[in-house]
Formats: sequence, C-alpha cells, structure tokens
Amino acid sequence: MQFTMSALAEAPPLLLLPRSTTLSPRASTSMSNNINRQWKLSARPTSLVTPDVLQLSESPLPALEDGQALARVKYLSVDPTMRVWMADIPQYMPPVQIGEVMRAFGLAEVTESRRPDFKKGDKVMGLTGLQEYILITGKETRAFQKLPSLPFLSDTAFLGTLGINGLTAYFGLLEVGKPQAGETLVVSAAAGATGSIAGQLGKIHGCRVVGIAGSDEKCTWIKDELGFDAAINYKLPHWRENLAVATPNGIDIDFENVGGEIMQAVLSRMNLHGRVVLCGLISGYTSQDPALASFGQIIIKRLRVEGFLILDYASKFMEAGKQLGMWKMMGKLKDKQTLLKGLEKAPEAINMLFQGSNTGKLIVEL
Amino acid sequence: MQFTMSALAEAPPLLLLPRSTTLSPRASTSMSNNINRQWKLSARPTSLVTPDVLQLSESPLPALEDGQALARVKYLSVDPTMRVWMADIPQYMPPVQIGEVMRAFGLAEVTESRRPDFKKGDKVMGLTGLQEYILITGKETRAFQKLPSLPFLSDTAFLGTLGINGLTAYFGLLEVGKPQAGETLVVSAAAGATGSIAGQLGKIHGCRVVGIAGSDEKCTWIKDELGFDAAINYKLPHWRENLAVATPNGIDIDFENVGGEIMQAVLSRMNLHGRVVLCGLISGYTSQDPALASFGQIIIKRLRVEGFLILDYASKFMEAGKQLGMWKMMGKLKDKQTLLKGLEKAPEAINMLFQGSNTGKLIVEL
Repeated sequence: MQFTMSALAEAPPLLLLPRSTTLSPRASTSMSNNINRQWKLSARPTSLVTPDVLQLSESPLPALEDGQALARVKYLSVDPTMRVWMADIPQYMPPVQIGEVMRAFGLAEVTESRRPDFKKGDKVMGLTGLQEYILITGKETRAFQKLPSLPFLSDTAFLGTLGINGLTAYFGLLEVGKPQAGETLVVSAAAGATGSIAGQLGKIHGCRVVGIAGSDEKCTWIKDELGFDAAINYKLPHWRENLAVATPNGIDIDFENVGGEIMQAVLSRMNLHGRVVLCGLISGYTSQDPALASFGQIIIKRLRVEGFLILDYASKFMEAGKQLGMWKMMGKLKDKQTLLKGLEKAPEAINMLFQGSNTGKLIVEL
Repeated sequence: MQFTMSALAEAPPLLLLPRSTTLSPRASTSMSNNINRQWKLSARPTSLVTPDVLQLSESPLPALEDGQALARVKYLSVDPTMRVWMADIPQYMPPVQIGEVMRAFGLAEVTESRRPDFKKGDKVMGLTGLQEYILITGKETRAFQKLPSLPFLSDTAFLGTLGINGLTAYFGLLEVGKPQAGETLVVSAAAGATGSIAGQLGKIHGCRVVGIAGSDEKCTWIKDELGFDAAINYKLPHWRENLAVATPNGIDIDFENVGGEIMQAVLSRMNLHGRVVLCGLISGYTSQDPALASFGQIIIKRLRVEGFLILDYASKFMEAGKQLGMWKMMGKLKDKQTLLKGLEKAPEAINMLFQGSNTGKLIVEL
C-alpha cells in the first residue's frame, strides 16, 4: 500500500469548486470541423425535468487561443443539486440562466492544449457542463484540476467516493454530526452516492448505522454489502414501526438527505440534544412546497438552528437571575404587563396570546 | 444599590421547574369550608381554547397533613407553552390529562402551613395550576420556592423579567445565539414577554436589534421605550420590504418565537453561518399544520440542525481525500455506480435521482 498512499499524498484536492462557471461553449469563431453537442436550459422545471426543460443543440468547437485547452468529456456526474441549479431561487451559486449550457460536474480528457499546465491526454475534473467538449480558459484555475493516476482506483471513483459525494459525507458527518462510538446514526437516501458513504463512515467511527432507502434491493445492498446495521424500506407500509425497532436507543445523529415525511419520522425519534446534518432535501427539489422553503434556507445559508428549552439551564438560574435583576434595577431592562382580573378570565387570557392582543407579560390576577 | 444587589445574591433560583407536577387539588377529605375553584382540562383543543376545553369547577380545600402547606394563588402567568401542554403530542413534559387541573406557573401566598420551610405570609412561586389554592406537599421541593423580598422589584417581575421569560431570553440569546457586538439580531413576537427581553439583551450586547410585532402600538413601544433599532409591523402590506430595509447587512441571529411565514422571511435574509435560536413557534400552536411538526421536534428535543455545504471545507479537501482514498483501498468504503451511456441520456438521468431509480453514484458516460 506504500506506493498508493504516497501517490494519494500527492493528489490534488479532488473536488473542484469554482467561484463561478467560466465555460465558454459559445465562442464565435470555429477553426475546427468538430461539433460540440450541448444540453442547454430552455425552460425552468416545475416538477421533474420535462422535455421542454433541456434542449440538445449543436455548436462548432471554439478555436483555441493561447492559455486555453480543449477537453472531451468522458463522464458526467448526475447530482440532485442540478435540479436546484435549474430553479430561479436564491441558492449558493447563481442559478443556470435560460439559454446557458446546463451546469454539471464531469471528468474530461484534454484533446488539445495551448497552456503549459494541461497536456493532451491529461484527465481533468470540474464543472464541465452537460456537453461533449469543454473549453478550459485561463480564468477557471480553481475549476479544473488534473486527476492523479492511481493504480487501484478507477477514474470514476473521483466523481463519487473520492469526489463530491465522499467529501460531502466526510465533512458533513465528521465536522457537523460529530459521531461518537456507540451512538445511533440514521442516514436517509442511504443507497445514494452520498448517503452510502456517510453510513460507512458512521460504521468506521463505531456508530450503530441505520439506512433509509426506497427498495428492498437497495436495503439489501447497504445492509449486506456496506455493513449497515439495519435498513428501512420506506415504501413498505410499516416503515415507521420498522424504524422504531431498528433504533431501540433513539437516534443521535440524522444525516438528512431527503426532508419531508422521512425527516419528520426521524426527528420524532431523535434523542435530546441530537444533531441533524442537513445535507439535502431531495423530496422537495421537484415540488413547490413552501413548507420546505425554510429548511432549504438552512442549507443554503449553512445556518445553525438550535432548539432550546429553559429546562436545560437550571444549574445557572441563580447567576442569570442576579444579572437580570441588576440590569432591571439599572434601568437597562424594561417591561410591561397586561393584567386580567379574576380566575374566570384564564381561558380568555390564553387565547389573547395567539390573537396578539397582549403586550409584554400576560398575567391573570386573582 | 448595594443592599439590593446583595439581596439578589441571596435570591433563590427564580424559575421553578419540577420534574413532575405534584399538585394535589383533589384530596379526599375536607377540614375546611373553603372552596377551591379550578380550571380543569375537559377536552383537547383543536385551535383556540374554546369553551369546551376548560371547565371551571369547585372542590373543597384539602385538609393539611404534616409537611404540607396551603397557598392562595395571587398571580397566574399566561404562557404560550400552556397551549402545548393541552395537546396530546410528544413534548418536554407530560401533556395535561383530561380531568386534571390545567398546568400554569403562578405566584401564591401561604395561608396555612404544617412544614418548617414555609410560613404563613410567605410568597412562593411554581406550578400552581389554574386554580385559587395550591396544596404544597412534601414531594415538590424543587417546584415551589420562596420569593425574595426586594424593595425595587414588584412581585410580578418574578413571573416575567426575572422569571421564566427573562431566563428564557437570557440563555436563548447568550448561550445559543452567542451575539457579537455589531451583529444584527431579529426577534419575532418582539413585544411579547420573552421577545421584549431578548431584544433588550441584544442591545446590551451591542447588536443592531430589529423586532417584529403585530401592531403599530407594539412597534412604538419596543422602538421608543425599549430601544430597539427598528420595529416591523408584520400586518402591514410591505412588511417584508420593511424588514429588508431594517436589516441592510442581513441578519446574523434570529431569536425565533413565531415560526411559519415570519420565520421564512427572516431566514431568507440570514447571513451565511447565522444562528437561529428556536425558542417558540406560536404561529403553529393553534393549528394542525404538519409542516411545523419538524420544527416543533427541534425545540422539544433541543436538536441542533445545521445546514451544510461542501463549499465551506475547501481548505481541508486534500486531507479528506487522502483519508477517503485510504479507506477505499483498505476495503472499508465500497461503492456502486449506475452508468447511463450517451449524452442524450442526461435529462433522463437527472430524473432518475428523484424517482429513486439509481443505486450509488449516477454517472452518464459519453
């Protein structure tokens, strides 16, 4: 393994994340007879990607200028985030515009180069877009990187396990989820590219790992081949009960890829102070469900949302009470009371809270 | 102030949180002619507290045994959480059962005592319930505590600013929100008992504080009297635009008491890596909206939900890639690929993700 590990040590970062896409597929002059076929966004989808959403068009390959290289796309990574890029909603990258080549990660081989860092035959990875050829200009230095040649790893591993999915599972689980040995981890979309790795990383870190997936075949794969402790087929009628049986000690970490009903079932079994790694909400990407909008914002803005109950701070009440009392006596904390007289007013008082009819503290005086 | 501060230092914890309610309002024998009027839960509410939900009934006062005290309730705290206690849903305390006296915080004065720690005339606070008299048994030592007598503070301050609301605002904002000077804090239900204090604590800690409330009168109060930097009346037609104008640098902390549309508007203006203190979801307490169920679980279980994008970990990709590569070569990470051949298959491949028709990494091979 020595050779391989040292080769890995030389490997560049494998996930290629440009600040902006600098694809130039529509250069104006053609010095080649070759044709580039491209999927362009022609309409924004409302649900699935219907035939009007993407249009396959042809354009001549651009002429190479100094500092440019041309690469032929060999593999395209298909990721749920592509559906998000198609929608005209606030997100972490600009949405793809109508008429633009659809954004996608891919693996390409350099066919022609007029820049020193890429030679013909080099394999590169980055945002190639859904097309046959990608022109690498001088602007996207962070966007395309050469693939290391490793004897035991196939090229396509760099699109998945060693690429965007592996890194997503790695940082999401380890840095956000912070798994401890003996804890229970639930992974949704567990047979997907990211979920299948997140679950295996959970096993490496000593967790009980339960995966949720949508077919018996997928469940068999993650359980028998990947070593998950249990797998729940959410298309079976009693899947919620099965989830309960598979998580006898509750759930400490939810690696959430799905959202909606599946997330709700997992959340209802979470232990106190559990962690939810909000990685994806695939159940909502093809719907216009406003209920998911708030969870979507949590991902896009990488927010930390923490549920909070005063019960947990009982040991510090004394200290806080003194501080509040001092601020109050110093005039830094003001308050107002809405007082209702008589025990019989209690039900009315409770309703006032929900009708917005009180200001400050609402009290019933007996 | 010296005297007052030292008196505060002696003060017991002001928020009284028993593990279980040990009210004994229905003792079997009566040695008194006095009558205790009680609001008992008679039906579970579906929306607001309709007349069938709470029933006012009378029962004779119980006879005191050794180790017990009787206190007459003077003030009842009216809190949104009472509506949650009425519902038969999983929550942080057992729901109130049909036929039981409705649970409530209150302030009472001891009228009769057969225990050494409480004397006639002592003021006590705790879960008195919605009734005129509370029997203090030997079991709820954590549940009832004596009020300190402080010359500058009214008794009812211990129900609000120095009680449950003040402590909630204090720990929620300071321990979960972790405000930094110069940050923008938005508080919803900002003219409520908790929100009004949370906002003032934000000012004490150097934040720009924007409150959201439901009337011009409330907005005037929090802005002119409490010193909030801006106040948004969410019942005005352009309140979202007003929120945008009031938060020119985005929002760093959301002290969330409301949920629903208001939370959604705030989340859409959050800055990257902002913090949401999920304290309450009052907009959902009187509805059966399943969309709010997941957020409710976050509060009840005190979960930490963290949105996550791989973009933020770019500086650590190298290290992670090596680790993943090693695990893969050691056979600890397995994967599977679903390969589609031909660029023309790309739209179909994208849809496969949402139809659950792939296992592992989905790739289009050109």
